[in-house]
Amino acid sequence: MIFPNYDVIVVGAGHAGCEAAAAAANLGSKVLLITMNMQVIAQMSCNPAMGGIAKGQIVREIDALGGYSGIVTDLSMIQFRMLNRSKGPAMWSPRTQNDRMLFAATWREKLEQTKNVDFYQDMVKSIIIKDGRAAGVVTGLGHSINSKAVVVTSGTFLNGIIHIGEKQFGGGRVAEKAATGITEQLVDLGFESDRLKTGTPPRVDGRSLDYSKMEEQKGDDEITGFSYTNTPKPNRQISCWITYTNQKVHDLLKTGFDRSPMYTGRIEGTGPRYCPSIEDKINRFAERERHQLFVEPEGWNTVEIYVNGFSTSLPEEVQYEALKQVAGFENVRIFRPGYAIEYDYFPPTQLTHSLETKLIGNLFFAGQINGTTGYEEAACQGLMAGINAHQKIRELDPLILKRSDAYIGVLIDDLISKGTEEPYRMFTSRAEFRTLLRQDNADLRLTELSYRMGLASQERMDAVIEKRNGTEKIKQLMKEISVDPSEADGFLAKYNSAPMPHKNKSIQLLLRPNIGLKEMIQELPSLAPLKVFAPEIIEQAEIQIKYDVYIEKEKEIVKKMSSLEDLMIPDNFDYDRVAALSNEALQKFKKIKPRTLGQASRISGVNPSDVQILMVYMGR
Amino acid sequence: MIFPNYDVIVVGAGHAGCEAAAAAANLGSKVLLITMNMQVIAQMSCNPAMGGIAKGQIVREIDALGGYSGIVTDLSMIQFRMLNRSKGPAMWSPRTQNDRMLFAATWREKLEQTKNVDFYQDMVKSIIIKDGRAAGVVTGLGHSINSKAVVVTSGTFLNGIIHIGEKQFGGGRVAEKAATGITEQLVDLGFESDRLKTGTPPRVDGRSLDYSKMEEQKGDDEITGFSYTNTPKPNRQISCWITYTNQKVHDLLKTGFDRSPMYTGRIEGTGPRYCPSIEDKINRFAERERHQLFVEPEGWNTVEIYVNGFSTSLPEEVQYEALKQVAGFENVRIFRPGYAIEYDYFPPTQLTHSLETKLIGNLFFAGQINGTTGYEEAACQGLMAGINAHQKIRELDPLILKRSDAYIGVLIDDLISKGTEEPYRMFTSRAEFRTLLRQDNADLRLTELSYRMGLASQERMDAVIEKRNGTEKIKQLMKEISVDPSEADGFLAKYNSAPMPHKNKSIQLLLRPNIGLKEMIQELPSLAPLKVFAPEIIEQAEIQIKYDVYIEKEKEIVKKMSSLEDLMIPDNFDYDRVAALSNEALQKFKKIKPRTLGQASRISGVNPSDVQILMVYMGR
Ligand SMILES: Cc1cc2nc3c(=O)[nH]c(=O)nc-3n(C[C@H](O)[C@H](O)[C@H](O)COP(=O)(O)OP(=O)(O)OC[C@H]3O[C@@H](n4cnc5c(N)ncnc54)[C@H](O)[C@@H]3O)c2cc1C
Ligand SMILES: Cc1cc2nc3c(=O)[nH]c(=O)nc-3n(C[C@H](O)[C@H](O)[C@H](O)COP(=O)(O)OP(=O)(O)OC[C@H]3O[C@@H](n4cnc5c(N)ncnc54)[C@H](O)[C@@H]3O)c2cc1C
Repeated sequence: MIFPNYDVIVVGAGHAGCEAAAAAANLGSKVLLITMNMQVIAQMSCNPAMGGIAKGQIVREIDALGGYSGIVTDLSMIQFRMLNRSKGPAMWSPRTQNDRMLFAATWREKLEQTKNVDFYQDMVKSIIIKDGRAAGVVTGLGHSINSKAVVVTSGTFLNGIIHIGEKQFGGGRVAEKAATGITEQLVDLGFESDRLKTGTPPRVDGRSLDYSKMEEQKGDDEITGFSYTNTPKPNRQISCWITYTNQKVHDLLKTGFDRSPMYTGRIEGTGPRYCPSIEDKINRFAERERHQLFVEPEGWNTVEIYVNGFSTSLPEEVQYEALKQVAGFENVRIFRPGYAIEYDYFPPTQLTHSLETKLIGNLFFAGQINGTTGYEEAACQGLMAGINAHQKIRELDPLILKRSDAYIGVLIDDLISKGTEEPYRMFTSRAEFRTLLRQDNADLRLTELSYRMGLASQERMDAVIEKRNGTEKIKQLMKEISVDPSEADGFLAKYNSAPMPHKNKSIQLLLRPNIGLKEMIQELPSLAPLKVFAPEIIEQAEIQIKYDVYIEKEKEIVKKMSSLEDLMIPDNFDYDRVAALSNEALQKFKKIKPRTLGQASRISGVNPSDVQILMVYMGR
Repeated sequence: MIFPNYDVIVVGAGHAGCEAAAAAANLGSKVLLITMNMQVIAQMSCNPAMGGIAKGQIVREIDALGGYSGIVTDLSMIQFRMLNRSKGPAMWSPRTQNDRMLFAATWREKLEQTKNVDFYQDMVKSIIIKDGRAAGVVTGLGHSINSKAVVVTSGTFLNGIIHIGEKQFGGGRVAEKAATGITEQLVDLGFESDRLKTGTPPRVDGRSLDYSKMEEQKGDDEITGFSYTNTPKPNRQISCWITYTNQKVHDLLKTGFDRSPMYTGRIEGTGPRYCPSIEDKINRFAERERHQLFVEPEGWNTVEIYVNGFSTSLPEEVQYEALKQVAGFENVRIFRPGYAIEYDYFPPTQLTHSLETKLIGNLFFAGQINGTTGYEEAACQGLMAGINAHQKIRELDPLILKRSDAYIGVLIDDLISKGTEEPYRMFTSRAEFRTLLRQDNADLRLTELSYRMGLASQERMDAVIEKRNGTEKIKQLMKEISVDPSEADGFLAKYNSAPMPHKNKSIQLLLRPNIGLKEMIQELPSLAPLKVFAPEIIEQAEIQIKYDVYIEKEKEIVKKMSSLEDLMIPDNFDYDRVAALSNEALQKFKKIKPRTLGQASRISGVNPSDVQILMVYMGR
């Protein structure tokens, strides 16, 4: 036998597959990562960027749980920005541009350095199923490889079809073969599968662009990065550029609509509403005179440029003629055209919260196969599936994150409970508790959970303890240390804050809008003892103090909700009595007969208000 | 129009295509490099190594002519060795292990930094032909792109079929699509095409090997490298390891012969006799008890290992079971199996010496498409085709290297004159003038030629002039400076050389076997003035002095030959009179009626002895 028996086989080495393999292996499972081409592990299929609004929080959470995406991103970034710094900290979202090649190379290095991960290059054609459980895979070369669990992370590869204008051809990404077999087998077994589509913009030659006609977008001066561990940060950064489409561009794009695979019905899959193609944008927002384009470099040493915002599957001449009308793109040279891809996904309502399929035990799905879009969404599912595959075969409890624990919890709960009919992307608006789910506290929220399972390292845990204790200590000290007007008034004036009426606790000063803790410690002698704390601890204390009211309010709701979570609904509960319920909720409740209020709240089509009403009727 | 008109379109970004694009562009042509996947430019499809015997000389020649392979190799090496150092300098052959990913990334960087090279990702399906000349290409996406010349460097991709045991599937390399269309079109136009095959060994997990059972092979202490320019060299190196097959391995391999694509006739193409698969080796050399295997790391930061010497297309279980019996491989884990690939090539007798096809003007072929094997062989053809495509469209003379100029000259002359029915690989034995064609003097031989065309830079030319002048100066000085016994005897004794009978010119001392110039300069005060010369100049002078007799002898033959080259053979020459001719030569001469002795000598099947006999009969 070529292959030993594995604990976990991971199918596909995209973002989901890589995290899954690393997590299961780090927990102690013997893992085989099978992928079609070992030369392209952890490819960024689309934009060379990680994070951004809501997605940045997810990467922080992955990192806090001991996943690799944050570290890999930090090590391969060419630019860092903390988005939404001007808003409240719940909205701060780290985002990087990355060197595409370096990102993939770094991932591969990290995986190779992970004990317990074996690699194999081949295409998985079917899952071995024994006694209703996944027990291995069969590959294109004809190998049967045994395992106790299988995690499928096939991304955009299952029966992938690529479209550019009127051309279409099979492929999982341009120039890569599609994967076949798995869908057919699973459908035969009773799984439901459907088609989705996504698209990518053209890549162009940076030497052909005129940057003087664009706005420069520099990286932040200070790079905080994604990982809570100490990853080295680059000491220079590369700028991105901003430009805009215009009416001429739109008119030219429209000349291709009659040959568009989208508008002529050749593409059946639903596309991502929130990452629309440029043709979609000019169609849906016909009133907009221009759309923003981000001109993003693909790496430290390449002239290749990613035209973010110009995703398209129009005929290539049309892509070209339209692009040429964009300011700065007059002489553009296209390296590779934009294209759309259609692929199979499995509606995620077929999964449990551990990402195991309901039909076949020990079979897990993660990533784009579950109807999501985006590296971050894929990676976090991979991490959870890898953890839970390990837990399952050791007969340990699964790790299930609640909606109040993490964006990851929101994502999986949304998928599992509501399903998705279009590529699912994370937004802050999907999270009820976004004041709790901040990028600055993912470690405080999650590392201990992971540490107790044996995934997050001692080092990570120690850092969290230090951060938690330090933060408490600062809050404590600030309640104790008083500042009097003579000390503070110059300082306050400097930051346009009214003078102090009388001596007061320093914590009170910090609640004032323009006043920052870092500056207080620097400039008020009474607070000098706080200089010993690290900047991220000071920042954490500041956030907790300033947003205390909001945080406590959300915690209150969470507490209330979680006490309801397990509240049993009587078997014979008569929903028809509850006149105020929406019709959809009524039908669903009557059909599904949820056992608890928690379960009721997670049924697709059920709104929080329906649950609220139910609560009232149950006497709460 | 998306695409401007180009001077030269290069099809394929392998080793041949990359050199072709760079050369034509550096000469001033506007070049488009079209390749199927821009993510895998300049892939090393097989072993992560460059150079070696005869091939190392070629890389030096490419570099001397201003190609990039030498520079890229130097920048990505993880180990350097000068092979055959114990033999005469004509046999010295530089060889590197390379970081596979870094090699490709560096090539891409170099190309991107080359003015006049545009890139486009697509598959070329056919050549546009106007008035019997290549005038552009048509791509898979349906673009017609115009140019004045086309260089096709399709490597192993044309109708590629991959074989592993009884499995076979289309592909240009594993996990990459095959290219279609070009062969069919050219065959319709009257070209002859045929099939060849080559193979590659499995890649394994270095963590699964026991190196204590192997012999270590370290890099040289001194890294001279390939490029005559100053490329930075690594300051550490990675070792390779040597192990051996054994009888058990052979027996196990034989169990797969009935399923071997080679022995069951599924592969029609001829394989490389000199890079045989392991199954070939145990078949053809049944008496050998073991074969050497080189265990070669794939890069600085990867555990992937290339098992050099174990190329195979046997079923994967057989590969595995046999490999496990190799010392150090007891617990081996395979990452990717070995495989064989069959592909179309065009017998190179259809080309002129400039690598232009005889049938279609301005259409050039270079690399594996011409029936060669090896990166170096491909790269040097690419360079020459790129140069000559540029020259052709500018109506300038082609650059044709003679057999006495360069291994490149030998290679192209062999291909064009004799064709090849198996993958052609360079050996020193193919070169008649190997004392002239040394790795140390490729710059002296070739840089000026290239500089005059406008390819090699001024900097390169200046370095050559300095080397040439310095060498002459040293030779001059050594003829002048005398050494007397009192000064030299201690030195001579140290190197086991007899004492001097009397005072003598220092040049005479250097002719002694054990005496080196570097040491003389270091240790004999009279030669201290020579300390000003750079080490490579001292080395060059030493070689020229020590091997003067052999060098002059070969130069003499070259001179004689070249005077014969143009010697006309009378139209009515009666070959039947020449009894001593081999039968094959007789038939060929009668059929082809060569116009000159030179042409006669290059006819396939004609041996130098036949030419010698002809000469005698013609009264020379
Ligand atoms: C054209 C295109 C456009 C996109 N546009 C966007 C966008 O606009 N916004 C956005 O957020 N995201 C976009 N994405 C999505 C983003 O790339 C994915 O969300 C993310 O890569 C999904 O990660 P994954 O791990 O699920 O799968 P992938 O990254 O697709 O990786 C799947 C891996 O599995 C391997 N594999 C598949 N099947 C098999 C099998 N049977 N056997 C062995 N190996 C197998 C593949 O070789 C590959 O390595 C786009 C993707 C593509 C291809
Ligand atoms: C399996 C295998 C085993 C080998 N074993 C050995 C060995 O043992 N010893 C040895 O010396 N050499 C070996 N080689 C050969 C070595 O890889 C080649 O000699 C060398 O890479 C040839 O270089 P090339 O530039 O001619 O073609 P390649 O390196 O094959 O590059 C061809 C390029 O052209 C592109 N391309 C092809 N057709 C088209 C088209 N129609 N349109 C656009 N782009 C196109 C491809 O995408 C690719 O980028 C092996 C190769 C393979 C694949």
